Amino acid sequence: MELNFRSDNESPAAAEILAAVVEANRGTAWSYAEDQWSAQLNAAFSDLFGIATTVVPLSTGTAVNSIALATVTPPWGAVYCHEGAHILQDEGGAPEFFGNGLRLVGVAGANGRLHAADLRHAIKSNNGHGVHSYLSSALSLTQCTEAGTLYQPDEIAALCDVAKEFNMARHMDGARFANATAALGCSPASITWQAGVQMLSFGASKNGCLAAEALLFFGENQWQERAERLRKRSGHLLSKMRFVSAQLLAYIKDDCWLKLATHANHQAAQFAGAVRAHAQAELEFPPAANEVFVRWTASGFAALAAAGIQFLDWPSRTDLARFVFSHSTSDKETEVLCQTLQSLGD
Amino acid sequence: MELNFRSDNESPAAAEILAAVVEANRGTAWSYAEDQWSAQLNAAFSDLFGIATTVVPLSTGTAVNSIALATVTPPWGAVYCHEGAHILQDEGGAPEFFGNGLRLVGVAGANGRLHAADLRHAIKSNNGHGVHSYLSSALSLTQCTEAGTLYQPDEIAALCDVAKEFNMARHMDGARFANATAALGCSPASITWQAGVQMLSFGASKNGCLAAEALLFFGENQWQERAERLRKRSGHLLSKMRFVSAQLLAYIKDDCWLKLATHANHQAAQFAGAVRAHAQAELEFPPAANEVFVRWTASGFAALAAAGIQFLDWPSRTDLARFVFSHSTSDKETEVLCQTLQSLGD
Amino acid sequence: MELNFRSDNESPAAAEILAAVVEANRGTAWSYAEDQWSAQLNAAFSDLFGIATTVVPLSTGTAVNSIALATVTPPWGAVYCHEGAHILQDEGGAPEFFGNGLRLVGVAGANGRLHAADLRHAIKSNNGHGVHSYLSSALSLTQCTEAGTLYQPDEIAALCDVAKEFNMARHMDGARFANATAALGCSPASITWQAGVQMLSFGASKNGCLAAEALLFFGENQWQERAERLRKRSGHLLSKMRFVSAQLLAYIKDDCWLKLATHANHQAAQFAGAVRAHAQAELEFPPAANEVFVRWTASGFAALAAAGIQFLDWPSRTDLARFVFSHSTSDKETEVLCQTLQSLGD
Amino acid sequence: MELNFRSDNESPAAAEILAAVVEANRGTAWSYAEDQWSAQLNAAFSDLFGIATTVVPLSTGTAVNSIALATVTPPWGAVYCHEGAHILQDEGGAPEFFGNGLRLVGVAGANGRLHAADLRHAIKSNNGHGVHSYLSSALSLTQCTEAGTLYQPDEIAALCDVAKEFNMARHMDGARFANATAALGCSPASITWQAGVQMLSFGASKNGCLAAEALLFFGENQWQERAERLRKRSGHLLSKMRFVSAQLLAYIKDDCWLKLATHANHQAAQFAGAVRAHAQAELEFPPAANEVFVRWTASGFAALAAAGIQFLDWPSRTDLARFVFSHSTSDKETEVLCQTLQSLGD
Repeated sequence: MELNFRSDNESPAAAEILAAVVEANRGTAWSYAEDQWSAQLNAAFSDLFGIATTVVPLSTGTAVNSIALATVTPPWGAVYCHEGAHILQDEGGAPEFFGNGLRLVGVAGANGRLHAADLRHAIKSNNGHGVHSYLSSALSLTQCTEAGTLYQPDEIAALCDVAKEFNMARHMDGARFANATAALGCSPASITWQAGVQMLSFGASKNGCLAAEALLFFGENQWQERAERLRKRSGHLLSKMRFVSAQLLAYIKDDCWLKLATHANHQAAQFAGAVRAHAQAELEFPPAANEVFVRWTASGFAALAAAGIQFLDWPSRTDLARFVFSHSTSDKETEVLCQTLQSLGD
Repeated sequence: MELNFRSDNESPAAAEILAAVVEANRGTAWSYAEDQWSAQLNAAFSDLFGIATTVVPLSTGTAVNSIALATVTPPWGAVYCHEGAHILQDEGGAPEFFGNGLRLVGVAGANGRLHAADLRHAIKSNNGHGVHSYLSSALSLTQCTEAGTLYQPDEIAALCDVAKEFNMARHMDGARFANATAALGCSPASITWQAGVQMLSFGASKNGCLAAEALLFFGENQWQERAERLRKRSGHLLSKMRFVSAQLLAYIKDDCWLKLATHANHQAAQFAGAVRAHAQAELEFPPAANEVFVRWTASGFAALAAAGIQFLDWPSRTDLARFVFSHSTSDKETEVLCQTLQSLGD
Repeated sequence: MELNFRSDNESPAAAEILAAVVEANRGTAWSYAEDQWSAQLNAAFSDLFGIATTVVPLSTGTAVNSIALATVTPPWGAVYCHEGAHILQDEGGAPEFFGNGLRLVGVAGANGRLHAADLRHAIKSNNGHGVHSYLSSALSLTQCTEAGTLYQPDEIAALCDVAKEFNMARHMDGARFANATAALGCSPASITWQAGVQMLSFGASKNGCLAAEALLFFGENQWQERAERLRKRSGHLLSKMRFVSAQLLAYIKDDCWLKLATHANHQAAQFAGAVRAHAQAELEFPPAANEVFVRWTASGFAALAAAGIQFLDWPSRTDLARFVFSHSTSDKETEVLCQTLQSLGD
Repeated sequence: MELNFRSDNESPAAAEILAAVVEANRGTAWSYAEDQWSAQLNAAFSDLFGIATTVVPLSTGTAVNSIALATVTPPWGAVYCHEGAHILQDEGGAPEFFGNGLRLVGVAGANGRLHAADLRHAIKSNNGHGVHSYLSSALSLTQCTEAGTLYQPDEIAALCDVAKEFNMARHMDGARFANATAALGCSPASITWQAGVQMLSFGASKNGCLAAEALLFFGENQWQERAERLRKRSGHLLSKMRFVSAQLLAYIKDDCWLKLATHANHQAAQFAGAVRAHAQAELEFPPAANEVFVRWTASGFAALAAAGIQFLDWPSRTDLARFVFSHSTSDKETEVLCQTLQSLGD
């Protein structure tokens, strides 16, 4: 038994995914995404999303986000995102690199969420000075947010409406898109293109794949060639792309992705309940999917760690830690976590 | 039976490699190359090369080459390579992208090989105009070359000596390094650091891996941090890097890499013999490893294709085709190829 | 009589400067900064600053700032500045362009000034996440600030000390350095290298030149070659650089620069007095040099404009306007401005 | 008397131009190219070229060329030019910098001139490999060429036709456009837009200005905003742009530019005659405007230099030198040059 709640990035691949990789390893296949698995992606994702969808398979979320943003944003363009967004805080400047010096503008918002009025205010504050300012070019939302919270479909639509007002592209970083969709119980369409999102970073590595992500464009778009140029130019066009595409196909087949995410979300909910029941520890943000942020004493966290529980101390905060649950977290592991927390509560 | 000789990129993964991936899929592991497999790389490769070696695992050759070159070359620096080099002709400008506009200078040379005198002449022609010119910064050799030929250790040393004269870094693109090493029957050290090479793009995907490559720095170096910054910034730091590192470890374990390459080289040699024995078809370059370039009539190639043989028509040449042999090419497949060629010879 | 207080950028050149340009227009001269005027810069500025100073003549402040920052900051490096800094708000992303995607981090601070504690906090908040974060690389101070205020020598030293703690380079944007020096009545050394500043964007265009700025490096430095490479690569190495260098020499000769600035500062002080005496209008920031920011009613400003006074309505503020005084602002013009304001005060 | 034939870059400004600068130095003027001089540029150049012309004033030829090319070429685009072109050999990589890693492809051609068949061949050789290759995006011609020769209008049209075939933009580097126009005795339209050129780097600094160049777009274009963004972002939007624009207006007024160039061309023709009459020295290229390339013995050149004549030893050639004549070269100076050459001829 492992008691590792640091990150879903640390989870192994799911059996279905590994089986698909093994299965794809038969004979020769055209290289550079010209293979038969890659050829099925557009149809499979179009079916999933209920709209003509163009799929660009990739192997890291950072690459997907960066290619997406650089595809729609000129070097003198600004991308608006939450101030805690992964693209701003955790990608080592990849968006700026792919985008040749584009700028990310972080906007504050409670619980990891942007609000339409704040977004509009930020855009207005940055506009109106012509070539001396950056051009407001794109909005990037994160679903689930970095705080483990969610946007409802109408909230997404409201934010996309603001972006449309200013003629900006709309992107969603869906590193945990499966967890969001499973938690909301909605269709994937309802929180993406139906709400105004044009591009989705469809994450899969955190939820059961070895290394598989996809950039999705919804509906007619003129961006595919740019995205494919950037994919090659950034060294992300794998010669044996079949192994990535095979993962993606298996991942969305028979609701595999949602089953895996539902399991992870359920574990998180159990733990959230334990935190709520605890005398001292508190929930920093209202948990909605597979991440739980706990505010507690440094000594409390130290005791938890001493009991063998692994979690993430939040950078530059001694009173905050993150617990993440994945498709591979067992009921038993979650139970031990909850009991251990409880035992330290008195 | 497949008769696909288009590219070793199209081959499946070797059994040993796939087994290593499956084996690595046990439980959680630290993400972003902090896992236990990645932690073994430096020692394993240091042992293989007989010198302290720093390993940066990656998943594509384009990324390895580009990170290597961008690490040692300023934006105003020039990299010298053969005019047919992959970095110049086939990577969609990735070196220029990673290197923020560095310049690649192609130098002509028979049989895909650079010659020391030509290299020196090219460098001198580009120097001496101060800030108005690019600064000669690096040499990039390809082993095996794009023509399927090889450099002998002393030829590499002579080229590296020229680069040293001008204070330039020395890089080797070893996309088919295993085939070269196996063909030469030499130690990997003898054609790299012992000959003056400082950085090696150690290829593995073409020779049995799913997607695994490594950037190696030999001896003491000040470049590792830059390389790791670039890896993250370009979206190449896989969260589940364990699966790449596990491939690399299995690949070099027990001479697996050399066994796979030796098999491929042997197939190529059989076919080269068949071409030599043929009445019309000729060898464009002297084959030395796992690639055979054949010069023949367009009708001859058409007949071969009609017989079900798959190979690569060389771009903008109707009289040239490339045949590549891989670890997965069976004796039987090669035999059918040779017989088919022979049958079309009269 | 003009009543233009919009910007010192709109002022004409001073007579001394224009005379120097005319004087430099005699016969041929080596191009690309190899001329006899450029050759005198290092000595002249070393004399002025009391330390060996390397001078890189340029023609815009944006170029100077961007070359300075890109010279000391890697693409994955962060530059800390005030949230209102010109490099962040008004240069169209030039620092990001020259710096290949470096990041500017804006830090809040009253009256346009950074405070050491806030700077340290911002740096700490951005550090500690390795390659996932930007590397804190440089501090950029603005003197005079964008609010028309000043740093005292000890305040500069305190900020530079924080930067030193984190091994960061220290830059000063001195677009109005003359106004600052004149206002403080200090030596130029005391607010630059003696306080820890390593690079100065020495502005001259706003204070009497046609188009002349200089990047100064104080003391021994390893940055000159990078700066000169960037100057050429960005198209800023004028073929007839003699005309820029001649302006710079004339500008600092016989305290010309300080005389011009003192005049401008004096005009501003007159107006600041008028604002203080006014019943409704107020000073937004404590004026210290040649800029005065006035908070007043929209109708008040409208009346002033209707009276023929030209000033800058502050972007997205209806209650704020900027008045700038230059070397060419006459006593009479300032007097009319003050009287007009007074007449609208009742 | 000066005997400086090194470069027209070393010449002083013409009296008409200097007078215009002095004249422009009256009172305040809007900054950042919003002044009354800049406002006249479009009309003045439209009149000169006989077509609606958009003018972007700048201060160096490198900036003009780089902004032009980066405006029409994506980072993954290739620009074709002569192998000796200034953009390829002498701009320190500025086009690659402005173009975020675009690639320049040099094509050989006698006498500094591209030929349509060679251009087509080069484009075809680089195309057809999808994202693995650069996208052929632009043609850049130089008029006068770097060899001091000229293209006739129909030659330009033939080259532009090839570019059009491949959907490529057409640019002309006219650093010595005045000399070309004067020498051909043609209309400026005939060698630009009427022949298919869409963008012209209109040079003026070498022919009498202090520092003034312009990027011209002919006819309707969608590029102006990109060019203006790049101008600001690269630090080339001078605050006091009036002084550049005033130069440009004076330069084209009353055929001033052609008079200056005609004078320079005439001097060159005198010297070319002297070379033709010489027993040993020979013309390397057929001189057509204001540059003369002489092939001679190293000892011959040494003797000429010893006699006080200044010229440019061609890099990495001991038997070649360049002599350039400018608007400021006096008849007497040319006469002394010719006589000195003659005296060394026996």
